Amino acid sequence: MKPAAYTIHHSHCHFCWDRSIAPVQKIAPGETIKFEIMDASGGQISPNSSADVFANYNSDRVNPVNGPVYVDGAEPGDVLVVRLEHYAPSGWGWTANIPGFGLLADDFTEAHLLHWNYDATGKTPLLFGTNAQIPLQPFAGTIGVAPAEPGPHSIIPPRRVGGNMDIRDLVAGSVLYLPVEVTGALFSIGDTHAAQGDGEVCGTAIESPMDVVVTFDLIKARKLAMPMAELPERDATLARGKCWMTSGIGPDLMAASQSAVSGMIDLLGREVQLDPVAAYMLCSVAGDLRISQIVDAPNWTVTFHMPQTIFG
Amino acid sequence: MKPAAYTIHHSHCHFCWDRSIAPVQKIAPGETIKFEIMDASGGQISPNSSADVFANYNSDRVNPVNGPVYVDGAEPGDVLVVRLEHYAPSGWGWTANIPGFGLLADDFTEAHLLHWNYDATGKTPLLFGTNAQIPLQPFAGTIGVAPAEPGPHSIIPPRRVGGNMDIRDLVAGSVLYLPVEVTGALFSIGDTHAAQGDGEVCGTAIESPMDVVVTFDLIKARKLAMPMAELPERDATLARGKCWMTSGIGPDLMAASQSAVSGMIDLLGREVQLDPVAAYMLCSVAGDLRISQIVDAPNWTVTFHMPQTIFG
Repeated sequence: MKPAAYTIHHSHCHFCWDRSIAPVQKIAPGETIKFEIMDASGGQISPNSSADVFANYNSDRVNPVNGPVYVDGAEPGDVLVVRLEHYAPSGWGWTANIPGFGLLADDFTEAHLLHWNYDATGKTPLLFGTNAQIPLQPFAGTIGVAPAEPGPHSIIPPRRVGGNMDIRDLVAGSVLYLPVEVTGALFSIGDTHAAQGDGEVCGTAIESPMDVVVTFDLIKARKLAMPMAELPERDATLARGKCWMTSGIGPDLMAASQSAVSGMIDLLGREVQLDPVAAYMLCSVAGDLRISQIVDAPNWTVTFHMPQTIFG
Repeated sequence: MKPAAYTIHHSHCHFCWDRSIAPVQKIAPGETIKFEIMDASGGQISPNSSADVFANYNSDRVNPVNGPVYVDGAEPGDVLVVRLEHYAPSGWGWTANIPGFGLLADDFTEAHLLHWNYDATGKTPLLFGTNAQIPLQPFAGTIGVAPAEPGPHSIIPPRRVGGNMDIRDLVAGSVLYLPVEVTGALFSIGDTHAAQGDGEVCGTAIESPMDVVVTFDLIKARKLAMPMAELPERDATLARGKCWMTSGIGPDLMAASQSAVSGMIDLLGREVQLDPVAAYMLCSVAGDLRISQIVDAPNWTVTFHMPQTIFG
């Protein structure tokens, strides 16, 4: 790994996407940058916080992203190559059920906050109380460039230029390709997670500050409709072990996803005596939402997968 | 594995779900049954067929399921336990693009038929021409019991009582739990696949006749909203290797899924020189559709994953 030429600190962050935000750094393709990333609460949650923090939560200060970084030579129609070199997790993180947010927001209306104090080397897994052990798998949830359309755009939804995609596969060694829509690309990154399952169903992962090292490159004039990536060889311990699977079947993928996750929450209550909100948060950080079939009209099959091996 | 007490042959099949179809066999919980299963064309496609077969395809004869089997003591509100003991694949199968069917039916309007002649022991992978090698991973796409609602119900869509769920994880060693809606449960199984990816995006998998051995059990009066399963330890070779990932981002999970698969078809054209319809069929048998996040309103992230290791 090349040494970073620049560091983008906490203070160099923004809370919406906007092409008019001035770059904090200009770089050339090929350069390597270190980003020091806050947690997704923007520092509103600390290791001593309780769920009361959500009573006065400032949603204008959530999901800060470090940047923007201006990449010399990047023009609309190019592709920005983002090599995710290294993550250095901090050893602390949180998972929450935030009222009004999450796949089952109507069922889980109370604020809950869970802290994780973990081995930042990943040699020992993260402990979910005495119930489960989650392997450390750090990645950045929000990675993107500025949209062409002028004005501020919410940081919460992702777009074709990336953003809050929350793709748990973007671990170290991944190469992400993003479509450039403005001169200089205006790249930013944030929302680092110590682990997450596919779906991020309760709305939060293991939200954890960490440093991220990224090397940039540029492909000129390459058509790319949506972000894509090359993923490295990975640990597949969880994928190979026994697991529980629940399903949702019906004509609406959203409703089917809700059924599948509700089924897993019921199952975890029965099999490992987790209360519903704990099960919901565990589903978010360690379970996977998949589309098993999307062709047998008019009903689709969504499945939710929970590795049994995390329960020891 | 217990020896089968009964065999349900090809001729004992039906082409819709209907609680009025007479059982072909009555069994007690704990018994083991062998099913000899036709391919999903119901024998309309043979090893010598060309894509012309779809010009006169009889859609009333597709997706036959063997059964129904009446399980003594099963009543509405019970759960039928289906232990998938063993699959004995035939060594021949097919994959097709059938006009009007599949996730990208508007883009792929011509009939295509691909034959697979494979090592039924699974010691050597299935050959996708000279382009790719797919591990044998047999399972039954359609596993279900009769719905309570009287009258015939199409065999194509799955329902809460199971049916054409096309869950590729239901390999040998899996235990599937189905909600019983009628006395005797009236279990049937068919639509065996030699391999399939999550999504089954072109509408067909590696459709392959095979024998399946199943042991039944019953849980009395257990609430179960949707099918669930326990999955065994599995080979995770593909999950652990490098892969390509494309994405679809937007407010509609169906449109996002289409974007992600279209992106992979483009990528496979560029990276491994597959023509679009070949890439589409390969996506269906070897690629995986996942929901990376379903909480960052109003846009969701769907990703499609293709293992690079199958390309040797």
